[in-house]
Amino acid sequence: VRAEYDAELDDIRRILVVMADAARAAMSAATVSLLTIDPEVAQRVVSDDDAIDEHQRRLEDRVYDLLARQAPVASDLRLLFAALHIAADLERMGDLAAHVAKVGLRRSPAAAVPASLQSIIAKMAGVADKIAAKISAVLASPDAVDAATLGLDDDEMDRLNETLFVVLLGAAWRDGVESAIDGAMLGRFYERYADHAVNAGRHMYFLVTGRLLDPVDAADESGSGDA
Amino acid sequence: VRAEYDAELDDIRRILVVMADAARAAMSAATVSLLTIDPEVAQRVVSDDDAIDEHQRRLEDRVYDLLARQAPVASDLRLLFAALHIAADLERMGDLAAHVAKVGLRRSPAAAVPASLQSIIAKMAGVADKIAAKISAVLASPDAVDAATLGLDDDEMDRLNETLFVVLLGAAWRDGVESAIDGAMLGRFYERYADHAVNAGRHMYFLVTGRLLDPVDAADESGSGDA
Repeated sequence: VRAEYDAELDDIRRILVVMADAARAAMSAATVSLLTIDPEVAQRVVSDDDAIDEHQRRLEDRVYDLLARQAPVASDLRLLFAALHIAADLERMGDLAAHVAKVGLRRSPAAAVPASLQSIIAKMAGVADKIAAKISAVLASPDAVDAATLGLDDDEMDRLNETLFVVLLGAAWRDGVESAIDGAMLGRFYERYADHAVNAGRHMYFLVTGRLLDPVDAADESGSGDA
Repeated sequence: VRAEYDAELDDIRRILVVMADAARAAMSAATVSLLTIDPEVAQRVVSDDDAIDEHQRRLEDRVYDLLARQAPVASDLRLLFAALHIAADLERMGDLAAHVAKVGLRRSPAAAVPASLQSIIAKMAGVADKIAAKISAVLASPDAVDAATLGLDDDEMDRLNETLFVVLLGAAWRDGVESAIDGAMLGRFYERYADHAVNAGRHMYFLVTGRLLDPVDAADESGSGDA
């Protein structure tokens, strides 16, 4: 039973790897579509999001089946719950990538991101990609310290978001109300993407190592918000 | 074992009722603090959010324990997973109420909501409260058709959010970039609150009746997004 259980847990981990890679690719493509005004790429990000949702449903079904047939004990249960949490975070990262793509679609063929914001949005996208990459690394290599450093990248994202607002609210802003709203929303989407990635990374660390990250990080994790 | 299991499921439902009531009260208070510029009430909404987070952790612990000790079969498992989904939605509704309160806090003692937006924001808050009330009603009275009508309220919220953007982007807008960004963010917070309430309501309907809402509604539910 143990071997069978381990094999099924490996299957669940494999779905998570697929989801993490898809969520990373989605935000990367969304950023490209946004900054290069490419509605075809944006549309693909939006339609590909269904596949990520489907992976999440598949993972939940696997967890149900495993619980129903194997009745795992408490510590194994915790691993399965970690998998559910990770899948939920990855699913929402996919949603956020689709939101970014939709901002570009709505303004196309005009640019959603004015020249004054291109650099900061590109930096936020860079941090988002760095955090997303670390999630996959944690799954591939359990002993990676990457999970523990996710919080630092998240701090960088928060600072970039503050800088973004300084630009949007500055006296030099000349790009109008609509671009300001789009810029603020985009900032929020990248920042939320990073938050979910950090949460996913911490649960992944637990899933792979069976150990919790230190309480300071865990405290950051709770109630980090939504929307 | 069955009686004990039913009693524990009742306990879980009770935690959900407490969370639903708290999430509803939080958004109601957040709206009051926002529209009347009351930083004390806003601060209380923010600090009370910890209690909602704590209820969610308690519910997850109950579910773990129940799974570990009772090894429920598939249909009962589904009920427990529904409870986990509902708790996650309610927890995020609490976060969104705190976000609304924080917008008011950041601009206090100035008004975060200019006169031009007071009416539409009050309407959005009204719909949010109506949806939140229906969630509690579904738990209290399983045969209520309320769950099935949640989608209609959500449509109303979406229309209000569109109207909000017409105002923000209209030629008559004279309230500046910062109020426009705050207005757009507030619109998003109320709209996301309603989305989570709709999701929670559908899972609650299943938790209480064991029946799924019709597939059309279920399709709406998936991938409704984040942030």
